[in-house]
Amino acid sequence: LKLLIHQSALRRVEERLRHVGVPLDLIVVGDDGIAREGGQEIANTDIRPEAIWLSLDTWEKKHMGPFMTAALSAPGLKWVQTFNAGMDSPIFKQIFDRGVRMSASSAQAVAIAEFAMAHVIAEWHPFATYREAQRAHDWKRIRFDEISQSHWLVIGYGNIGREIARRAHGFGAKVTGVRRSTAPDEFAERMVTQAEVSAVLPSADVVVLACPLNEATRDMADAAFFGAMKPNSVLVNVGRGGLVDETALAAGLAADKPRLAILDVFREEPLPADNALWDHPKIRVSAHASSFGSGTITRGDQLFLDNLARYLKGGALINEVSASSF
Amino acid sequence: LKLLIHQSALRRVEERLRHVGVPLDLIVVGDDGIAREGGQEIANTDIRPEAIWLSLDTWEKKHMGPFMTAALSAPGLKWVQTFNAGMDSPIFKQIFDRGVRMSASSAQAVAIAEFAMAHVIAEWHPFATYREAQRAHDWKRIRFDEISQSHWLVIGYGNIGREIARRAHGFGAKVTGVRRSTAPDEFAERMVTQAEVSAVLPSADVVVLACPLNEATRDMADAAFFGAMKPNSVLVNVGRGGLVDETALAAGLAADKPRLAILDVFREEPLPADNALWDHPKIRVSAHASSFGSGTITRGDQLFLDNLARYLKGGALINEVSASSF
Repeated sequence: LKLLIHQSALRRVEERLRHVGVPLDLIVVGDDGIAREGGQEIANTDIRPEAIWLSLDTWEKKHMGPFMTAALSAPGLKWVQTFNAGMDSPIFKQIFDRGVRMSASSAQAVAIAEFAMAHVIAEWHPFATYREAQRAHDWKRIRFDEISQSHWLVIGYGNIGREIARRAHGFGAKVTGVRRSTAPDEFAERMVTQAEVSAVLPSADVVVLACPLNEATRDMADAAFFGAMKPNSVLVNVGRGGLVDETALAAGLAADKPRLAILDVFREEPLPADNALWDHPKIRVSAHASSFGSGTITRGDQLFLDNLARYLKGGALINEVSASSF
Repeated sequence: LKLLIHQSALRRVEERLRHVGVPLDLIVVGDDGIAREGGQEIANTDIRPEAIWLSLDTWEKKHMGPFMTAALSAPGLKWVQTFNAGMDSPIFKQIFDRGVRMSASSAQAVAIAEFAMAHVIAEWHPFATYREAQRAHDWKRIRFDEISQSHWLVIGYGNIGREIARRAHGFGAKVTGVRRSTAPDEFAERMVTQAEVSAVLPSADVVVLACPLNEATRDMADAAFFGAMKPNSVLVNVGRGGLVDETALAAGLAADKPRLAILDVFREEPLPADNALWDHPKIRVSAHASSFGSGTITRGDQLFLDNLARYLKGGALINEVSASSF
């Protein structure tokens, strides 16, 4: 099997690749961004792999060029493992439409879920009150609202949404999940479809957007959505900026529906320095970095190795992309 | 059955008490702190209940007098339901030694566990860095250490410790529990006895004290304990102040073993205004208030009603106190 891989990824998995049971021909993109096969430099248009591992390294080191050229045009390409969870970037549809098998990544799900839960908790418990009491040496018994008494609406119950539900459920919260299939899941009291979201919103204390961006979900959080939210609720967007009408959100925040928005994604990224969202007192901005947890790389490596074994056996891939993924 | 109850508690459960299946004679301590039976005031020494519900109201309204007098001296007393989780106050041993059945409270476990988890998370994720980047309109991809990659040592795996383990496990953390019985539990990878704590400390990122205070646990966190801790770890004490040698803790913090201590309980409470712990930059002080969650009262009411039904059937009580509880 001929595999296109980044040198940084290769260093981490080299030892484990020896045990896959078939000889591997490697085309390696070096730390200089140049592809080499058997030590010889080759032009991007000459890269002819059967499989491509688009590991997170390719993005972090800005070495997407050789990978994208091969993914979009190399003949004989059969499989691409991406580091992306969502397939909304048009390039993925182009690759898929070539007849190439693709598998998305669930490696960031744990990090994103932890980010969402941690950022809600940091705003939910009265930490400023604790700090102030300590500063004043005030032995004050501070009460707090329990997350255990809250209701979470997790819109998009894929790998990420389910990890969020696992954590909220662990805290004793009630979780309503939203996905196409309403088959039950152990971490959700209830599973509904997108059509039922507006009926659940008035009772949800925390609403998390963790769904893909597509024609059915674009601008989902609009004026009617915010109008239906529970007063003093919290909105979290770890999905895509296009899910939220940012003008409608500002109007919702003015009415405390929600009282706070934790936004990791935006319609325009990077969020322009002069965008008013940066200074909104009821918005927490982070830079599309909810996946930047310390375990994401390791989970991504394991996912690739697991999928490589499945590919070689001719079986279904974990997170395999289908026409309905777009 | 003749029951001593606080008026505030009675208001919440009055309707549900009608369904217990036996006639109840109530001695009610009013919002004025005075006990009345059939509407007539009675002296504390004349209160003769078969059962006492020492609900949280008695503590909050400073109306312990009639309850404690009856618990310590009323003839014919058979059962006391307390709001306390720990039986270290000598008065409980006195009541138990009279031959009175006692049941402790697990109603605060969910609140205390949520408090512990929330306060660790608030210190674990780099919230100050997120705030600073937002203030500066800086689109900065901030990395974070995942709790999913951490190891928690939960010393005291009773109602409270197990709820802490449930939450840490929900985040994907590895949990080692400490209790007398090393029988396995779904939320802990490993269960050890107190004798093994020093062997686990060097690998624990978060150490939570949630055990009772007794002769076996007093001053457990001493110089040797801190010396064995992992550098940059976090200590949480939601048990009792007497578990920690506060002088040894200060020395441990100076060496970042632990780097931070989240303390809700102290050797002297209220913590005196001139105690140096208040101003220690590596200590977070709260006022023995980890149980002050919004669900504690409701869970306490339900626990009393469940135990009342068990008492009337002659069965074992939930959290029934035994000689080994002291």
